[in-house]
Amino acid sequence: MKLVELIPNFSDGRNKVVIDLLEKDVKSVPDAKLLDSEMDYDHNRSVITVVCPIDNVIDLAFNMIKTAGENIDMNVQTGFHPRFGATDIMPLVPLEDTSMEECIELSQELGKKVGKELGIPVFMYAYSAKTPERKNLENIRNKKFQIEELRSAIGTGNYIPDYGPEVIGRAGATIIGARDFLIAYNIYLNTDDIKIGRKIASAIRARDGGFACVKSLAFKMPEKNIVQISMNIVNYRKNPVYRIFEAVKTEAKGFGVYPVRSEFIGMVPQEALVDSFNHYLMSGIKNKNVLDYAPGKI
Amino acid sequence: MKLVELIPNFSDGRNKVVIDLLEKDVKSVPDAKLLDSEMDYDHNRSVITVVCPIDNVIDLAFNMIKTAGENIDMNVQTGFHPRFGATDIMPLVPLEDTSMEECIELSQELGKKVGKELGIPVFMYAYSAKTPERKNLENIRNKKFQIEELRSAIGTGNYIPDYGPEVIGRAGATIIGARDFLIAYNIYLNTDDIKIGRKIASAIRARDGGFACVKSLAFKMPEKNIVQISMNIVNYRKNPVYRIFEAVKTEAKGFGVYPVRSEFIGMVPQEALVDSFNHYLMSGIKNKNVLDYAPGKI
Repeated sequence: MKLVELIPNFSDGRNKVVIDLLEKDVKSVPDAKLLDSEMDYDHNRSVITVVCPIDNVIDLAFNMIKTAGENIDMNVQTGFHPRFGATDIMPLVPLEDTSMEECIELSQELGKKVGKELGIPVFMYAYSAKTPERKNLENIRNKKFQIEELRSAIGTGNYIPDYGPEVIGRAGATIIGARDFLIAYNIYLNTDDIKIGRKIASAIRARDGGFACVKSLAFKMPEKNIVQISMNIVNYRKNPVYRIFEAVKTEAKGFGVYPVRSEFIGMVPQEALVDSFNHYLMSGIKNKNVLDYAPGKI
Repeated sequence: MKLVELIPNFSDGRNKVVIDLLEKDVKSVPDAKLLDSEMDYDHNRSVITVVCPIDNVIDLAFNMIKTAGENIDMNVQTGFHPRFGATDIMPLVPLEDTSMEECIELSQELGKKVGKELGIPVFMYAYSAKTPERKNLENIRNKKFQIEELRSAIGTGNYIPDYGPEVIGRAGATIIGARDFLIAYNIYLNTDDIKIGRKIASAIRARDGGFACVKSLAFKMPEKNIVQISMNIVNYRKNPVYRIFEAVKTEAKGFGVYPVRSEFIGMVPQEALVDSFNHYLMSGIKNKNVLDYAPGKI
């Protein structure tokens, strides 16, 4: 069966009513499966993970972007994650029998429809980017360039939208694109020194000479004595989770700092789980050795 | 759907032709799913793991016992695992919607049929035991009481079979019973000193004051400088895998010895995987966060 994973990020992590409406959109599409839904109060951002049959992808993605636009007002939204719009980003990821080419095609059709019918400016990124600059998300929106900057820049230079009007309304702008599967992973360290966090984030990320498939940033958390190393693992087969965790632990130790917990946003593929499990237990189980049927009460 | 897991152990780990015949039995039953098949040359023993709809359990289990009896000759079989017969043991484990009571009932019907139609003596164990002594497998067959001892003891005292004749033929005897789900787990240590292995096996097992849900034995491997700690984890929710691995590692360290690898025989439930993964990575993912659909080539 041809399946596509949608992992839309919405700029509201506080109002459960809005998230319920978005989940309702998922439930109303035949055969779409809501895998995960996580609200982050501090970032004021929610991530919904859906697996959807290829034929319903455009309808579902469009409905969610519409719902978010009607219910999240970017004129008043605040939060410290780089953000562009009510639906900040709508990634499409090919699963199993779906090809990247099919996802690219779907994303273009979706972008066109969102721009035209909802009047939201759309920027295409990753494999759907129409210029090399837009391949990398950080070249479109980053910590220094968010919706506030976009309001005046829209329609100029790199900020001419691929679809939709050159105007930022209350729904903001939306970034759409087909991308590879990735694992969003955060490690929390027991320090209030963001400089230590930044050094560690730098040590492990591709951009600064670290793991070739890791992007990372450090964030100071409102919680006392906690710094977050926020990561995207863009190829967990080449850069397995355990290796990244152990590398962060080693770097942190050099500052007398330790991981206190870690978290995964969205889904973790079973094979990534098996891989780390095998590392720590020196075992060699394969996906086929994993029993999906649980025993009852034991 | 009502499912039952069958984990028959056969006294042949060397002749692939026999194992192929047994796997063929599985494939010929509608909706039965062969999960795993492992041949162990040293123990001369194979374990086949099947998930089977409840209505086909008796047919499938009976056919496998018949095939093993026709193709494995216990008069010539050797191997160092405690063993009784061609089909040494046939455990039935309730999965998901199946109750233990249903498995007990199926096991009795199976035992009766095997005794009557195949002329194989059958001993019922675990929840299917008809006397308290036979609840525990080690009270039926153990390292000191195998088929050689059974030949003369059969028909006397604790060795009156529950079904079938009081005679040991070339198929030997078979132990059948409904039991809880368990994880069969082995850790290999870099020593040739079986005494160290025995001390560690003793330290961690319930019988000697260790983990309440762990049974263990030490075996010297033919491989140079390797001792195996062979374990059954009878409740992996109470005694998680990582805790047992770490305890063995700690005990071994006291002798200057280390684990070099570990292995799981048969299936590992996904929730056990998640549990150990979360321990090592200090994370908190749940079964619902595990993505069963893998991305394609990345």
